[in-house]
Amino acid sequence: MTGRLYGISLGPGDPELMTLKAARLIAGASVVAYPALPEGESFARAIAADLVAPDTREIRMDIPMTTERAPAQAAYDRNAARIAAELDAGRDVAVLCEGDAFFYGSFMYLFARLSGTYAVEIVPGVTSVTACAASALLPLAARNERVTVLPGPLPEDELKARIEGAETVVLMKVGRHIGKIRRVFQALGLAEHAVYVERASLPEQRILPLEKAPDPAPYFSMILLVKGADPWL
Amino acid sequence: MTGRLYGISLGPGDPELMTLKAARLIAGASVVAYPALPEGESFARAIAADLVAPDTREIRMDIPMTTERAPAQAAYDRNAARIAAELDAGRDVAVLCEGDAFFYGSFMYLFARLSGTYAVEIVPGVTSVTACAASALLPLAARNERVTVLPGPLPEDELKARIEGAETVVLMKVGRHIGKIRRVFQALGLAEHAVYVERASLPEQRILPLEKAPDPAPYFSMILLVKGADPWL
Repeated sequence: MTGRLYGISLGPGDPELMTLKAARLIAGASVVAYPALPEGESFARAIAADLVAPDTREIRMDIPMTTERAPAQAAYDRNAARIAAELDAGRDVAVLCEGDAFFYGSFMYLFARLSGTYAVEIVPGVTSVTACAASALLPLAARNERVTVLPGPLPEDELKARIEGAETVVLMKVGRHIGKIRRVFQALGLAEHAVYVERASLPEQRILPLEKAPDPAPYFSMILLVKGADPWL
Repeated sequence: MTGRLYGISLGPGDPELMTLKAARLIAGASVVAYPALPEGESFARAIAADLVAPDTREIRMDIPMTTERAPAQAAYDRNAARIAAELDAGRDVAVLCEGDAFFYGSFMYLFARLSGTYAVEIVPGVTSVTACAASALLPLAARNERVTVLPGPLPEDELKARIEGAETVVLMKVGRHIGKIRRVFQALGLAEHAVYVERASLPEQRILPLEKAPDPAPYFSMILLVKGADPWL
């Protein structure tokens, strides 16, 4: 009997925003695996820290953060093989995933390598999208409103075209792209309505008007724009 | 001292997909409030059933489901007043919300009526979007891919234009609009790539190719289309 691979979503950062299911599976796991920056912290491991039992086997996956693909591809190949060895030995493996495993999560690179061979279960989680909306007290969408999620690295012209035709807009992966994003919002006359949220749900969370957001922004930051006026008010 | 209003997101239906924070706040609540169909069930109350203590005060909010706005507006006015009376008496009120309170959730109509007067905290939750993706084992988006969320009641021409220019597409509120939605996907040559998910995370969950989905579909159903091919595979 081979083991089962779990993609366990941990939510945006506050350990209490983990689901009951995620907490149960992590506490009972034979093996946990989690991404980490080489020689750096693992945010995923930190979120789950209070739940990982002392005798749990741990696979720390060092993933280089580069814009080149080859080094990260090699890292996913290598770590998928380490996980496969545990599964082949009959042990379930719980992969700890920041946010939601299938929403801009790196778990999908392990999923692509392992799901053809092993049984997989995904535990969905709270995304940064609704965590930021909750922190900013900003309802995202109602009734027939559309929501558009855009990654910050997209080219300036494309961002402009997509935001212009959108209703609610969520900008992910803001980081060093914030200057470009702010120019786009300014050009569209929307900058004063946009809200910047950094490290939502963590003690160091910050919520600022976009005009006052830092440049560069940290990796865990997001911009929300809600155009919809609600006639039910 | 007035009480505090909590918007407690419950997730997609499986009680284990509630967050630890939601579970703690519901178990300790003096007052819980929840929407219900007149003379019908409350899905929100059912998700939280095992957590509501016997001595908790309960506010059942009957909300008529109509396309006319006036009856629902009157119901939100009336129930906001009932909640305000509890808050004025110094009791915290936990409003139970299916999915996420601020993502197409009816809690925002209470928020609009009460947040100017009372302290509010929102506990974000797992949306049906990532719950359906998890159930269907369908990674939603990676890297610079865009995600577009569209409500099913939008006009056919608008759906067509929005889906054509999109990458990952999430169709909410499918229900009786499924025939129209299917026609749009067929016209765009995308129907065979679209996945229909019904009652994600519940025991009666069903996952079908869009072509085989029922018409009408139940209220709790969604269609996912992921166009992105992943070159990291």
